[in-house]
Amino acid sequence: MIIAVDAMGGDYAPANPVKGALLAARERGIHAILVGDEEAIRKFISKEDVNGLPIEIVHASEVIRMEEPTLTALRAKRDSSIRVCARLVKESKAHGIVTAGHTGAAMVITKTVVGNVKGVKRPALALAVPTPEGPAVFLDVGANVSCRSEHLVQFAIMGHIYAQEVLKIEVPRVGVLSNGEEATKGNELVRKTVDRLSRTNMNFIGPVEGRDLFNGKCDVIVTDGFTGNAVLKAAESIAELAFTVLRGEIKRNWITKTAALLLRGSFKRLKRKFDYSEYGGAPLLGINGLSYICHGRSNPEAIKNAILAVSTLHENHANERIHDRIVELYKQEIL
Amino acid sequence: MIIAVDAMGGDYAPANPVKGALLAARERGIHAILVGDEEAIRKFISKEDVNGLPIEIVHASEVIRMEEPTLTALRAKRDSSIRVCARLVKESKAHGIVTAGHTGAAMVITKTVVGNVKGVKRPALALAVPTPEGPAVFLDVGANVSCRSEHLVQFAIMGHIYAQEVLKIEVPRVGVLSNGEEATKGNELVRKTVDRLSRTNMNFIGPVEGRDLFNGKCDVIVTDGFTGNAVLKAAESIAELAFTVLRGEIKRNWITKTAALLLRGSFKRLKRKFDYSEYGGAPLLGINGLSYICHGRSNPEAIKNAILAVSTLHENHANERIHDRIVELYKQEIL
Repeated sequence: MIIAVDAMGGDYAPANPVKGALLAARERGIHAILVGDEEAIRKFISKEDVNGLPIEIVHASEVIRMEEPTLTALRAKRDSSIRVCARLVKESKAHGIVTAGHTGAAMVITKTVVGNVKGVKRPALALAVPTPEGPAVFLDVGANVSCRSEHLVQFAIMGHIYAQEVLKIEVPRVGVLSNGEEATKGNELVRKTVDRLSRTNMNFIGPVEGRDLFNGKCDVIVTDGFTGNAVLKAAESIAELAFTVLRGEIKRNWITKTAALLLRGSFKRLKRKFDYSEYGGAPLLGINGLSYICHGRSNPEAIKNAILAVSTLHENHANERIHDRIVELYKQEIL
Repeated sequence: MIIAVDAMGGDYAPANPVKGALLAARERGIHAILVGDEEAIRKFISKEDVNGLPIEIVHASEVIRMEEPTLTALRAKRDSSIRVCARLVKESKAHGIVTAGHTGAAMVITKTVVGNVKGVKRPALALAVPTPEGPAVFLDVGANVSCRSEHLVQFAIMGHIYAQEVLKIEVPRVGVLSNGEEATKGNELVRKTVDRLSRTNMNFIGPVEGRDLFNGKCDVIVTDGFTGNAVLKAAESIAELAFTVLRGEIKRNWITKTAALLLRGSFKRLKRKFDYSEYGGAPLLGINGLSYICHGRSNPEAIKNAILAVSTLHENHANERIHDRIVELYKQEIL
C-alpha cells in the first residue's frame, strides 16, 4: 500500500502534509510518496528523524493555490503537485491520494486523470458528520451539482461501504435527504431515489429531514451535491457563530473568564466533537484509486488520519466492493 | 388593524396564543380575534384582566393536531381554528393571521382560502436567522418544493420588503444560495435567478454559499423550499447537538457545574441569539392578508412578537409594495 501525499496542498504546506505522512509511517508503517517541490520537502525533512521510514519524494514543479479559479488552474498548471499525485495512481505507482489542497482542482484532476471505478457514474465527496451516537456519513457534499436518482443510489452504495469500513458501523441505516419524512414530501429526485433504494437489500429507512443529519437517526444520508454543499456549509457556519458568540460572552469580566477557564476541558471536548480532523477529511468515493481531500487548515493529525482511512479502504477492497454492488444492482434492474 | 389569532395552535394552546394576544393588546393596543373552542378560551381568559382590551372570540369547533398528516386534516376538518382564521381574513373581518399550529395545514389553508397577493405566483415561508450583525431573512424554507427562477425573484422582492420593514435594514443586500460564489458554480436554477436578479435595482450581491447565511454577508438569501428546508433543519439540529454536548460536559463534576453556574448569563444570551421567538416565527409572505406561522413551542412573547410583526407589515403596506414591485419587474421584462 503506497499513498501519494500532496506535500504542497493546504494552508500549512509542506509542514503539515509532510508531518502527517511521517506520523502514518512511524505509527503504522505506511509507505508514502511526498509529492511537491523536492527542495522544500528535503529541507523540511532534514530536521526530522526519517531513518528507515518508508518515505520517498517525487518532484512536482507547480502548486495550485487555494484561491485560484479551478478552470484556469487546471489549464495552466500541468505539473501541479496534485496532478503528479494523480499520475502516480494512474501509473499504479501509488494506490491512493491524500491532499489538503484546492478541493475543486483535486476533484477534477483525480476524476479525469485516474478515472472512476468501473460502473460508477459519478464519484461523490463524502463527509463524516457528528451525531450523539458517533459519526454519520453525508454525501454528496459538492462533487455533483445536478444529480439523477441512479447517482444517488450509487452514492448510497459508496457511503454504505465507507460507513462499514472506516466508521465501523456493521449495518448502516441509509436515508435520503428530503423536506419531510412523509411519502407526499420530497421533490422528484427524492421520490425516484426512494423507489430505487427501497428495492435494494440495504437497511434503507426512507426519506429523512435536515435535522436527521446530526441526531443519530441515520448512518448514511445521500443528497445531490448542490443541497449537500449548502447544508454542510450552513451547519459549519452556525456552529462557528455559536463559538464566536460564546467567546465574546466569556470575555465579559473576570468571573466569566475564570468560569471559562474551569470549563476549558469541556469546551475542548465540545470542539473536538465538531472537529473535521478525526476522520481526516472528505473521501472522494468512486475514484479508481482512493482519494481523500482534507481541509486546507488540516493539522498533521488530520492528514495522518486521512492516510490511515485510505489505507483501511484499500485493505478492505472498498473499490472492488463498490464495483460488485453496482453490478449486482444493474442485474436486479435497480440501476 | 385586526389580527386573527389561532388560539388552538401549538403545543401550549390555548394558553400561549391567548397570552401572546393579551400582551400585544396591552402593550400596543392591537385588536385580536381569538379563534377556537369558545369555552376553553373563555375559561382561560376569565383568570386574566381583560377589561377594556380590544379582544374578541370567534368559535371554531375543530383543531388540527400537530401530528396529523396535512392532507387528511384538510379534508376532514372544515371548521378548524386555522381555517376559521383564514375565513375571517377572506371576509375582511381580519387583516392578518398568527398561528403556532400545524405548519403544513396553515400554509395550504391560508393559500387556498385567502389567496395570493395579485401577481405573486408562490407565497414563501421566510425566517429570520441569526448573524453576528443581526438577523438576516432566509426564504423559502418550505412552502415550495420545486421552484423556477421567476419564483426566486419574487421571493427576493418579498424578503427585501420584510427585511426593510421588520428587520429595519435600509438597503438589504440580496443573495441567492449556491454551492460557491463563482459564476461557474450553481445549478441551472441559480444561474437563471442570478441573471434575472442582476437586472433589478435591488442591491444584489450574487450567488452566496451556505456559510453566508449566518455570517452577516447578506440580509436576504433566496433558495427553493426543498433546499431551504434542509439547510434550516440541519442548522437548527447542529446547534441543538452543540447545546446537548455542552450540557453533558457541564454535568461532569462539581467544578464544571459551578463554572457553568457562573456562566449562566452568558449561556442565556447565547441561547437567545439562536432563539426563534425574537421575530415571532416565520411569515408566509405573498398571502393576501399577512400570515405568521410560529413554532409549535412558541411562548407568549413569540406570539406577541409575531402579532407585532404582522401589524408592522400591515401598517407599512407590505403587500401593496410587493404587488407594485412585481408589476414593475413585469414591465421591465425581468419577470
